[in-house]
Amino acid sequence: MPSNPPPSTSPGLRVQALDSLSIVLGMGTPYLALDRAKLETNIQRLRHRLGGTTLRPHVKTAKSVEVARLLFDGGTGPITVSTLAEAEAFADAGFTDILYAVGFSPDKVGRVRALRDRGVDLVVLLDSVEQVVPGIPALIEVDCDGHRGGLVPGDPAALEIARALGADLRGVLTHAGESYFADSPAALVAAAEQERLAAVTVAGDLRDAGHKAPVVSVGSTPTAHFAEDLTGVTEVRAGNFVFFDLVMAGIGVCRIDDLALSVVTTVIGHRRDKGWILTDGGWMATSRDRGTERQRVDQRYGLVADFDGELYPDLLMADASQEHGILALRPGSTETLPDLPIGTRVRILPIHACATAAQHDEYHLGDGERWPRVRGW
Amino acid sequence: MPSNPPPSTSPGLRVQALDSLSIVLGMGTPYLALDRAKLETNIQRLRHRLGGTTLRPHVKTAKSVEVARLLFDGGTGPITVSTLAEAEAFADAGFTDILYAVGFSPDKVGRVRALRDRGVDLVVLLDSVEQVVPGIPALIEVDCDGHRGGLVPGDPAALEIARALGADLRGVLTHAGESYFADSPAALVAAAEQERLAAVTVAGDLRDAGHKAPVVSVGSTPTAHFAEDLTGVTEVRAGNFVFFDLVMAGIGVCRIDDLALSVVTTVIGHRRDKGWILTDGGWMATSRDRGTERQRVDQRYGLVADFDGELYPDLLMADASQEHGILALRPGSTETLPDLPIGTRVRILPIHACATAAQHDEYHLGDGERWPRVRGW
Repeated sequence: MPSNPPPSTSPGLRVQALDSLSIVLGMGTPYLALDRAKLETNIQRLRHRLGGTTLRPHVKTAKSVEVARLLFDGGTGPITVSTLAEAEAFADAGFTDILYAVGFSPDKVGRVRALRDRGVDLVVLLDSVEQVVPGIPALIEVDCDGHRGGLVPGDPAALEIARALGADLRGVLTHAGESYFADSPAALVAAAEQERLAAVTVAGDLRDAGHKAPVVSVGSTPTAHFAEDLTGVTEVRAGNFVFFDLVMAGIGVCRIDDLALSVVTTVIGHRRDKGWILTDGGWMATSRDRGTERQRVDQRYGLVADFDGELYPDLLMADASQEHGILALRPGSTETLPDLPIGTRVRILPIHACATAAQHDEYHLGDGERWPRVRGW
Repeated sequence: MPSNPPPSTSPGLRVQALDSLSIVLGMGTPYLALDRAKLETNIQRLRHRLGGTTLRPHVKTAKSVEVARLLFDGGTGPITVSTLAEAEAFADAGFTDILYAVGFSPDKVGRVRALRDRGVDLVVLLDSVEQVVPGIPALIEVDCDGHRGGLVPGDPAALEIARALGADLRGVLTHAGESYFADSPAALVAAAEQERLAAVTVAGDLRDAGHKAPVVSVGSTPTAHFAEDLTGVTEVRAGNFVFFDLVMAGIGVCRIDDLALSVVTTVIGHRRDKGWILTDGGWMATSRDRGTERQRVDQRYGLVADFDGELYPDLLMADASQEHGILALRPGSTETLPDLPIGTRVRILPIHACATAAQHDEYHLGDGERWPRVRGW
């Protein structure tokens, strides 16, 4: 990839050089870059880990048909979605086995029925009898760690819902949302086992009561990478793993070098009196996500690398306005602020890939290729 | 506007009622609602306040041609933009007097020249000689409060830049970004005066040295509403005021009842053991902005109102996943959690209107009308 031109004392010359660079790159900053090799490595890693267990990837992170196809060797397969807009877009692209993993509400009946009428096996998620709609198959949501919705194992409501669903009962689902706050391999292994056990227990209770509950769906990126036992589990969901991010690196699920996404921004100014470098990438380009705030190492709005991907030691995107980023050294650092002339392109490694990607309409693959994202609901 | 149907003991009947409601509304949740009457009142209020001083609204908040036209009685006028994508979209809509108020970098020369060649008087912003490009008129950025970029008053670099710009010098600009953290009318009045004084001082220095510096541009939503003296100022910029938000209400610039935006979401579940109501509106619909976190009253991810706009006492959007909101009472509240059956539509009042609106592609006006937003860079 082209590197930044050397600093020049002539503004005119530098403008010319940067103008050419911008033409070569064919795009203005900020933009969302995707490293295809890292993406493919991340996918292979989880596949290898899961062996024969079905992976039903959550497409909410990438929201990209191209990324999803890479997960299935160019074909289609079972997927998880977070919106009906995703379900519709992936159905258009030939995906027919879709789990809508956000609690179902009856105002969405029309769109769900329309997808099912097209031949898509769209399954919904629920945790109350009120959400049951005849003819719409569903999984019962199980709460394994108090993170969000779902029934705790042993709650008699599971059997009530199973009776109300009848033949529409497909099984159970749980998500170890709290695993994002685990911070040791042992804690991650324990979170994965807690997730498995909760789902398997409720599925067992349903089967003991005579219900068919073929599906036992678990998963999150952290637990998918640390589960040591998947007995009784029929499918694993994970989404973030295709890209990874600094939150995942912070809890030890990946290395910083595995991060497949970055936001390319341009240096637009300096405040040497304050130790700041200003860029044209603010929270509109990175999101406001501050997911490392409560981790051992707070990466603020992201780490900063040069255009070739080499990290600047201790340099953070320390603060953000809508279209301005402020780069500064980590508090207490003994490093020297790098000399980055106006026009230098730098990469911001994302705190939370799902949130950063959502600020953009497409991925830039570096070879001129662009992959669109699904938007809206 | 239609209100939510009464709770029903029959899931079937309720589904039917909600199905009809959803058809009447013609849209699924979450979606971004805009109250036209409040928008118009907010616009009139600032116009009345500024009297004869030129308002150059910042379109980065609404990114909507329709909202901008309301600011000019259906016509066009001087505007401020935060991206070249906004400049291009507004130029397409007939706006010809445009200030690009993010520090200019030379990789953007091509698009700026293309707009100027179309007859748009596009002016850029800079604070160093390196950013000067012959033929592109510019304002010099002044730092009035240490918030971001710009030259502090008295910095000799202003004269160097003026000499490099020559006839392309248009004047000076400053933005009291720190006024968002002011928390009393006196502090806001002082921030406005500090902003005015910084800009007027640098403009005076330039003129004393023989440069023409006709434009003295100041503004932010807080200072525009609290400035008591605009002597020497030629134009005021403000953006957020069209919608307002809970950050602005928190520092006393507006009342909560002035907020023109809300995110409509649907109740999808309950965790009565935890005092939680779950909705289908997560951070994807509201943004991750937590701008009231350091204010006197932390509103978390937003206040919650019923579909008619009536606030539920002490009910907050307390937490957010990608597509899940968790509603809960404010810590310490003595109120009772409202009984909101699955399918109930509620409104989330935004923490930061610029960030919340950016999560959506269009505004829903309530009468079926939809206004698109400009996206990207």
